[in-house]
Amino acid sequence: MNTLDVLTAEELDAIHEQAMRILEEIGTRVLHPGARELLRSLGQQVEGETVRWDRGFVLEMAARAPRSFTVRPRNPARAVEIGGGRPVYAPAGGAPFCSDLERGRRDGTLEDHLTLVKLAHAAKPLTCLHSGACETAELPEASRHLDMGYSILRWSDKPYVCYGGSGAGARDSVELAAIACGGRHAIEETPAILGVANPNSPLAWDLPMVDALLAWAEANQAIAVTPFLLAGATAPVSVAAGLSPLVAEALSGIALAQAVRPGVPCLFGSFFLPVDMRSGRPNLGMPESVLATLAGGQLARRYGLPYRGGGGLCSSNAVDAQAASETAMTLWATHLSGSDFVLHAAGWLEGGLTASLEKLALDLDLLRMFERLGRGVAVGPEELAFETLREEGPGGMFLASRHTLDHFRDWLFESPLFRSQDYATWVERGGATTDGAATVEWKRLLERYEDPGIDPAVDEALRDYVARRKRELSA
Amino acid sequence: MNTLDVLTAEELDAIHEQAMRILEEIGTRVLHPGARELLRSLGQQVEGETVRWDRGFVLEMAARAPRSFTVRPRNPARAVEIGGGRPVYAPAGGAPFCSDLERGRRDGTLEDHLTLVKLAHAAKPLTCLHSGACETAELPEASRHLDMGYSILRWSDKPYVCYGGSGAGARDSVELAAIACGGRHAIEETPAILGVANPNSPLAWDLPMVDALLAWAEANQAIAVTPFLLAGATAPVSVAAGLSPLVAEALSGIALAQAVRPGVPCLFGSFFLPVDMRSGRPNLGMPESVLATLAGGQLARRYGLPYRGGGGLCSSNAVDAQAASETAMTLWATHLSGSDFVLHAAGWLEGGLTASLEKLALDLDLLRMFERLGRGVAVGPEELAFETLREEGPGGMFLASRHTLDHFRDWLFESPLFRSQDYATWVERGGATTDGAATVEWKRLLERYEDPGIDPAVDEALRDYVARRKRELSA
Repeated sequence: MNTLDVLTAEELDAIHEQAMRILEEIGTRVLHPGARELLRSLGQQVEGETVRWDRGFVLEMAARAPRSFTVRPRNPARAVEIGGGRPVYAPAGGAPFCSDLERGRRDGTLEDHLTLVKLAHAAKPLTCLHSGACETAELPEASRHLDMGYSILRWSDKPYVCYGGSGAGARDSVELAAIACGGRHAIEETPAILGVANPNSPLAWDLPMVDALLAWAEANQAIAVTPFLLAGATAPVSVAAGLSPLVAEALSGIALAQAVRPGVPCLFGSFFLPVDMRSGRPNLGMPESVLATLAGGQLARRYGLPYRGGGGLCSSNAVDAQAASETAMTLWATHLSGSDFVLHAAGWLEGGLTASLEKLALDLDLLRMFERLGRGVAVGPEELAFETLREEGPGGMFLASRHTLDHFRDWLFESPLFRSQDYATWVERGGATTDGAATVEWKRLLERYEDPGIDPAVDEALRDYVARRKRELSA
Repeated sequence: MNTLDVLTAEELDAIHEQAMRILEEIGTRVLHPGARELLRSLGQQVEGETVRWDRGFVLEMAARAPRSFTVRPRNPARAVEIGGGRPVYAPAGGAPFCSDLERGRRDGTLEDHLTLVKLAHAAKPLTCLHSGACETAELPEASRHLDMGYSILRWSDKPYVCYGGSGAGARDSVELAAIACGGRHAIEETPAILGVANPNSPLAWDLPMVDALLAWAEANQAIAVTPFLLAGATAPVSVAAGLSPLVAEALSGIALAQAVRPGVPCLFGSFFLPVDMRSGRPNLGMPESVLATLAGGQLARRYGLPYRGGGGLCSSNAVDAQAASETAMTLWATHLSGSDFVLHAAGWLEGGLTASLEKLALDLDLLRMFERLGRGVAVGPEELAFETLREEGPGGMFLASRHTLDHFRDWLFESPLFRSQDYATWVERGGATTDGAATVEWKRLLERYEDPGIDPAVDEALRDYVARRKRELSA
């Protein structure tokens, strides 16, 4: 799909210029002493916990990041290219709750996590997974990332975004990936996982997050540096103002990663939304997010960086018209922004607090629609079908024509969820709304899941690592 | 909003070329003897009921239509410009049924019609109405257009699309508009109403529709010539093939209107959707419609004609996630296509069979979002807010900052329907889904309705006309 610009070249310049002023005049807080030391040694001004960045340095570092890169999981056939012109979709991550219509909303468990892993593995549009598919509330907080990491590596062979934002967690994710994907050397050549580094907006980098960023950078794993800006709370209330700390935060994080390891794959990330002044909560799917997501894509292109923006985001607490409207708004913004990597593309409900199985089914259908849209209008002789038009002529009917029978299966989009049903028949069959139809769909998808299998030696090594680390962490 | 192109210049040429071949080699059926006679006299080849059109003639006629025009209703302050860069929205029209959550789905009545008129009149985004807001099933079919026309002229002073597709109905709509808007001469100078002319796709113009088109054209009222193409039924199953009869039908209708009255305002219309092969019914909100709507905008621009495309269209039978997804897909297509006039922009449910009050409330919110998006990102010093960013600095909080308090009411979009609500509070308050919230909203909107009043002499003249025509029609 073509991209849609919402900023003129002059407006882009103004935002860039302000971001540079922020870096140089206001600076960012960096709570990681080692990182501050490194930055000081590279000529940045460090005063207490504040780092004032030189724009030349930041831009030079950011220029080291590749425009596109490959993430290769344990099954090389499942490798994805990020920045290669087609968006890579990953499901929602980080939700404390899991829900479906039959069992309702509940604390996420490892069993729910496994269901979400299997669904995402079975889902064709999702070429990347998330090891934080939902929280596993019954497991100890200090070590649950190990169970989640094992679960995803055992039951899927697609690449994934790794859960958590601490140095120890990031190092464990790297170790597990190394075991599963041919060793540390192999994953340093081609990254096997992606980490997400969120600054503590505005303009602060906290210790565990920087520790994680350094761990991923050292191992050459991909990093989506993603400021989370809430207009009216962690950012000023205008889109234009929020975009400048967005740039400052994203580029400072990327610069730090590149200083540690030149060329480590980094994404310019944006997660920008307004606060709902009635509740003080994040308000997803609103016009401000659409505009900021589109502007973010323009900024990423300006800096020559792959873009992580958008997703299937909503505030709604139910899989209703609000959820679908908000999600469609954010997905359109995602696609028109040229987003290269789309986290939270499916299953996100309730501002991200809930991983919803019905929402996952709904979103997968929407993603399939965008894939169809991305292929555009084919205009060849077979599609133009002049002879078919001549044969039918004025008043003709193409329902049973050869051309229709030959092509409708391939050319017409068919949604299992969205149906055009006669009202009387629909009522007679129970008048199901989309959420109910989505229950049927996620169950069908789960039935289609196929265990990718795993080399028993690798499996054993993964289990050994998890067991050892659990012993260490509980000691 | 910028437009999004889905066809290359070469692809546009190929579709244009095929449309011209259709006009010249296949032709269209024209079941109106007077129109055939006129076309023959202007050099077109007429054989029985088939007219083969000369491409030079068709393009020359189409070039007579203005790129933009004004529609001026009885209140000149409510005049709208069509083709002036901002879309004009009109609500759904032509639905046999009306529904709301409390009273359910029912045959439309004049009372429902009046409610819909009042809602559309009160709704700020809708700057145009539709006199076929819903059917009035209790009234005689031959004369109900008079009651509906009177109802809209009495209770709203916005311009409107007139109901029906017959010559007598069109002539009555012109007469009523003339009475209300300063006489025949005045409305011939600046049109007061819009008519919709749908060919009987593929490639057929039936008698009553052409009769209506001629009546509107003779009176210089605006005409949206809108082929209704159902890929897989009334058109081949590919988007590209459907676009060529679309062009042939739209341009032939416009050419006929221009032959009757040079310069009569005409819109290049597109209503293009695939058939749902599972039910044989029209399938709205699908990727094929999105692509065809976008391509239609490109074609309209090529011919220098204002565009009627898109709408808030859906197949769903309920105001659920399906309805919202389909509607959001079609509204994005609408806006990215540069559509100048958007019929069925709000209230459309169940493939257009039902005018839903809740859907109207939902769609109005979506239209407000698109209006906000259309204003883009403002990048001035007040929006960039550098000093505010400096004051808060790293780790700051903007919730209570002066800049936020000064601007959040104007700068943050607030939806009455879409809220970010804490889950526990939401459940405690009944866990309403969007459709329930929409009931509250349409009632609020109805309360805000204000009677625009009417000159008693005009009112009496309208009533007299209606009474006289009813006597004639029942004779």
